[in-house]
Amino acid sequence: MEENLKKLALEKHYEWKGKIETKPRIDVSSKEALSMAYTPGVAEACMKIHEDKKESFNLTRRWNIVPVITDGTAVLGLGDIGPEAGMPVMEGKCALFKAYGDVDAIPLCINSKDTEEIIKTIELLAGSFGGINLEDISAPRCFEIERRLKEDLDIPVFHDDQHGTAIVTLAALINALKLAKKDIKDTKIVVNGAGAAGVAIAKLLLSYGAKDVICCDSKGIIKKGDPRLNDSKKELAELTNKEGLEGKLADAMKGADVFIGVSVAHCVTKDMVRSMAKDPILFTCANPIPEILPSESLEAGAFIVGTGSSEYPNQINNVLVFPGLFRGAIDAHASTVNQEMMIGAALGIASCVSEEELKKDYILPYAWDKKAHENVAKVVKEAAIRTGVIRK
Amino acid sequence: MEENLKKLALEKHYEWKGKIETKPRIDVSSKEALSMAYTPGVAEACMKIHEDKKESFNLTRRWNIVPVITDGTAVLGLGDIGPEAGMPVMEGKCALFKAYGDVDAIPLCINSKDTEEIIKTIELLAGSFGGINLEDISAPRCFEIERRLKEDLDIPVFHDDQHGTAIVTLAALINALKLAKKDIKDTKIVVNGAGAAGVAIAKLLLSYGAKDVICCDSKGIIKKGDPRLNDSKKELAELTNKEGLEGKLADAMKGADVFIGVSVAHCVTKDMVRSMAKDPILFTCANPIPEILPSESLEAGAFIVGTGSSEYPNQINNVLVFPGLFRGAIDAHASTVNQEMMIGAALGIASCVSEEELKKDYILPYAWDKKAHENVAKVVKEAAIRTGVIRK
Repeated sequence: MEENLKKLALEKHYEWKGKIETKPRIDVSSKEALSMAYTPGVAEACMKIHEDKKESFNLTRRWNIVPVITDGTAVLGLGDIGPEAGMPVMEGKCALFKAYGDVDAIPLCINSKDTEEIIKTIELLAGSFGGINLEDISAPRCFEIERRLKEDLDIPVFHDDQHGTAIVTLAALINALKLAKKDIKDTKIVVNGAGAAGVAIAKLLLSYGAKDVICCDSKGIIKKGDPRLNDSKKELAELTNKEGLEGKLADAMKGADVFIGVSVAHCVTKDMVRSMAKDPILFTCANPIPEILPSESLEAGAFIVGTGSSEYPNQINNVLVFPGLFRGAIDAHASTVNQEMMIGAALGIASCVSEEELKKDYILPYAWDKKAHENVAKVVKEAAIRTGVIRK
Repeated sequence: MEENLKKLALEKHYEWKGKIETKPRIDVSSKEALSMAYTPGVAEACMKIHEDKKESFNLTRRWNIVPVITDGTAVLGLGDIGPEAGMPVMEGKCALFKAYGDVDAIPLCINSKDTEEIIKTIELLAGSFGGINLEDISAPRCFEIERRLKEDLDIPVFHDDQHGTAIVTLAALINALKLAKKDIKDTKIVVNGAGAAGVAIAKLLLSYGAKDVICCDSKGIIKKGDPRLNDSKKELAELTNKEGLEGKLADAMKGADVFIGVSVAHCVTKDMVRSMAKDPILFTCANPIPEILPSESLEAGAFIVGTGSSEYPNQINNVLVFPGLFRGAIDAHASTVNQEMMIGAALGIASCVSEEELKKDYILPYAWDKKAHENVAKVVKEAAIRTGVIRK
């Protein structure tokens, strides 16, 4: 981002003094109105929920309220900047949740890096919410936090950095492969970066039908049996790299059809792109600077390039996912977010670009395309109902 | 409340499906808008807060966000009905916070009755908020929770059931004493009920200048040295009943100028009213049914009667307090809510009824009177600045 735009963005934040606010949905301007919405009338709603907790989804806003919760440990590409410093992002997401999905999202930060403390805090508050969006929590802690919350709660829990990124990446890949006339089953895919996003991308691609996925971290190719791997990478090693390849990222990329980077700036060279298969697809999503600049990728023969940034064509951004995904899950009364709903969301996004529209520099709908979000909601709702993950 | 109105209130709650929602404050309808409010522009605001946490009050909505938090243990007069069941009240307060004070309040319930767990949960989230409104948490736990949060946090913490009730009661008493031509210093006051509200009322009256306050609980007059008293009642015994009176509520009321009830229905008889001093003032605030019906009080010679209900004149309701109090505290950048701010709020409410308007059946402004809330905000802000409790 240019310096003058950075300055402007900061000025705007000072001017806005916050990106969301609340709005009453009821009249409170008379004695009669107050006696309905507040005391004594409110007691009727309270006692109905006291008799049956499930009524809280019908008698309060709970059904549509989703906190966007962070501990501030993995904010954007900025790293561990602290809970308060993560809040501008959380608020931005809350504004997008409402604008694109009509979800009433509220920003919360937790001042703890302790897995148990974070889980406990969220679980104690869960009765206030219709779903939970975890955000910018660093790996590998985020895996355990999400797993436990999903186990314990009967509302949708979604770690956006994992699954939002995975879903939009799959959507982009589905459309890119159409243009490249390749089938995902026969496609060699390299995922660079084995944090929250990388792990989720690899798993979702496999779940969608990819057969040949190789994951790398900063040390190189992830291979079964390597003693340096943590639990989530061990799981990844079980699922990927069937041929037991060893070496660095450059070794993995030789002959690959697809490179997906959720790693760091400038870790891919033109020569590495040249070593890939015919018509290679590169999603270089490191933020704010990609693994290799799109111009360089294209010079080295890339067929399609996508990045995480709005500065280039084909922005692969999870803002295409979370508003519609939660809208659909909430409308279905879903008790969780499962793999079918996530694949549904990816197909829902991909199908928003028609065959006529689909071009090398237009593989995804724009984030501000309301129809795309509506389509995601529709498909996710259908998937939840079809797979029967409905709150009892 | 009549049965048909109760039914209507419940129907309305089903129809509303929640009393508040969120509203974006920014444009997110274009690439340019997104790159300012969201990525990459948002990173500038994040890093500014990372450098200096205090900037979170300038760069996010934190400054104006106040959670209305309950554990559901003392909801209205309904008692311990559970966290979810308390939420219709919390949402109602949030709507009133915004409508009357332009405060962005969000409803939260905590599924725990453990003092330490509740304190911990709120403290871990405090970086998200500009103030904290505790609500419907039962005594004596509420005292410890509020005390510790006030100690540990540098934002205003306010337990509405204690102080909101105390402030509006003091406001009502100031105006009632004007009509009765009595001075609070020479007034014998009986407070019946030694839970959250009763304790706070007694303390605030003393702090305002009352000299002769006697408190009763369900067992009778609270007196120093009684071994059955818990910590908060022990403290009360130290501050009140200077003459060491013993006996029941009826004994306390003999010769009293003022009766303040925050207790249970029908615990006061006409004879007890008749036993009071000349021109007695009765604030019978038990909800939903008062300690004695206003018609009976008046028949027995009451000079002024107030209740907690909107069904009678002189409703003594803390909705007159919290929106303006937080508005003023927030605007002052107050780090706490102190006694001066609370007395200021009471005077601010009382002064909204002019000498010409002041009548036996009109001692307080109406809850929906916007000017009253603005006046509370103004006085509270001034008191915070005057006493120097400003966030550093």
